[in-house]
Amino acid sequence: MAVNEAERRAMTRALELATLGPRGVNPQVGAVILTPEGEIIAEGWHHGAGTPHAEVDALSKLASGAADGATAVVTLEPCNHTGRTGPCAVALIDAGVSRVVYALDDPGEVSGGGGERLRAAGVSVDSGEQADAAHAIIGDWLTAQRLGRPHVTVKWAQSLDGRAAASDGSSQWITGPQARADVHRRRAAADAIVVGTGTVLSDDPSLTARDGDVLYDRQPIPVVIGSRSTPDDAAIRRHPKAPLFFDTHDLSAVLADLHSRGVQSVFVEGGPTLASAFIKAGLADRVLAYVAPVLLGGGRLALTDIGVDTIDAARRLTIEEWLPLGADLLAVAHPVLTTEEGAA
Amino acid sequence: MAVNEAERRAMTRALELATLGPRGVNPQVGAVILTPEGEIIAEGWHHGAGTPHAEVDALSKLASGAADGATAVVTLEPCNHTGRTGPCAVALIDAGVSRVVYALDDPGEVSGGGGERLRAAGVSVDSGEQADAAHAIIGDWLTAQRLGRPHVTVKWAQSLDGRAAASDGSSQWITGPQARADVHRRRAAADAIVVGTGTVLSDDPSLTARDGDVLYDRQPIPVVIGSRSTPDDAAIRRHPKAPLFFDTHDLSAVLADLHSRGVQSVFVEGGPTLASAFIKAGLADRVLAYVAPVLLGGGRLALTDIGVDTIDAARRLTIEEWLPLGADLLAVAHPVLTTEEGAA
Repeated sequence: MAVNEAERRAMTRALELATLGPRGVNPQVGAVILTPEGEIIAEGWHHGAGTPHAEVDALSKLASGAADGATAVVTLEPCNHTGRTGPCAVALIDAGVSRVVYALDDPGEVSGGGGERLRAAGVSVDSGEQADAAHAIIGDWLTAQRLGRPHVTVKWAQSLDGRAAASDGSSQWITGPQARADVHRRRAAADAIVVGTGTVLSDDPSLTARDGDVLYDRQPIPVVIGSRSTPDDAAIRRHPKAPLFFDTHDLSAVLADLHSRGVQSVFVEGGPTLASAFIKAGLADRVLAYVAPVLLGGGRLALTDIGVDTIDAARRLTIEEWLPLGADLLAVAHPVLTTEEGAA
Repeated sequence: MAVNEAERRAMTRALELATLGPRGVNPQVGAVILTPEGEIIAEGWHHGAGTPHAEVDALSKLASGAADGATAVVTLEPCNHTGRTGPCAVALIDAGVSRVVYALDDPGEVSGGGGERLRAAGVSVDSGEQADAAHAIIGDWLTAQRLGRPHVTVKWAQSLDGRAAASDGSSQWITGPQARADVHRRRAAADAIVVGTGTVLSDDPSLTARDGDVLYDRQPIPVVIGSRSTPDDAAIRRHPKAPLFFDTHDLSAVLADLHSRGVQSVFVEGGPTLASAFIKAGLADRVLAYVAPVLLGGGRLALTDIGVDTIDAARRLTIEEWLPLGADLLAVAHPVLTTEEGAA
């Protein structure tokens, strides 16, 4: 049956509820329980890993039997999986819910299939309602689920001829203020910002996301990779979020660790060695190259060795956008996906 | 007095006549002589260095006294200079011409000033008529006059990260068909195309300007700079124009030689060493960087050393255009002119 007006309004409310939960290992999900007449009798949302899922949170607010014949409106397909909590699909069936409307399918191999289970139990199910709005909330979580690790953006600034600095290492203001503001906006949208120890030691970056001098509300976790130690007075130690340090060259291990901490997206800011290592390892899901209208020549390259020996092995990119930012140009791109890697 | 309709039509005709002459050391100029009633009584154009200027060519077709009281319509200011021919301004005065209309001022320090000389002799003078159309014909000549050498465009193709080739030297099809077609169009507009011997030996380029497989009517003179010799069977030796070889590293001397041969614009196509040398010497008036959406890493750089040691010495560019060409991007730019260099 078609989604009715009361269910539509309930989904809008469920989406608001979803955002009350934390970004993290689990998705942000909201749920609303309606009487058959369309009246809201309970609301719930997921408060984070180890706490009840949104549907169960909502049901818990009802007396036994109160959900009999009710409609559950949920922003994500009810799960079909017993983890730290039981399957939500079963909880809804047990509570007597006769109809479920949800926004997005759960792509999880283990957790997915809740809709099917509900249908098998005779529950009326509709999906896709306000899917775009739901995706805006948990798109990063879904991406990390699909990748099995956080989404990785590798960013660098370069001269037109691909240099990060002049021969003596000086690089101040290669790009202009509009490009730098764009970087800060994108930092604020990431869960973690990753640099190598070389960058910490040479540039002493604060790694905060700022609008002018003002910190954005949302700040990425600063992450430092490398074996050299970070000085006690490094700016990064004054970051609003406690920095994480990884003394390893195993980037997959770093990403796995960050994923387990609920990090869904990381922003790799360099330097050249670290950026190149992510690309070489095939771990760059997106690249952002801020190109300044300047020529430098010399040996201070924005990317070093990325494991390409011959032209056939070139890392081909799909350009999403050539975005002018003042006098600079931002190339927003992602690697061309081979058939094997799928068109995900 | 204002330019009248007959003079306007005569200028259009003079511009047609101008294009009958050759591109070369001297400008292409056309001239038409009108009776006071606006009737065309003679036409002329400049046939190349060492032959009469356009005005004199036109006057030569008239009987003595026939130009008395006539109007001369010329595409460039009549010269005021005795070279291989006498000053045209004087020739016009001597012929009894009472009015001169011309399109563009002659910027030459030696040749300029003809308009003033005519006025001083009581001749009515108007300038600027159809100046844009005249500039379209001799703009390159004027630029070369201003620079004191041919205009230099330095072109290269690169990966986004500034490489010309993969580590093993392979570089086929870094850029796509639209970018390559653009290169050929621009080659056809240049008087000479310049490469280093390294490029000749490694790539064996034909250096022709082609529309698909068809040669453009206009072909640049192929020019090879460097000390290594070009094989007898090199493709360049089959170019429709005879190649020139310069065994020198003195780029200014090469440009001076080309200028003396009537070359007004050159297109430097590489490789990296030669392109970098032109930029290092401050001899690049325009750069064209064809950027392919690909990452290569490694050491095969599109530009090598351009003499920049510190960021303050960076060669800053003014981007005229970021031009998408298929999946590629063309940066059309020129060096930022310092106050000292003038805003010419």
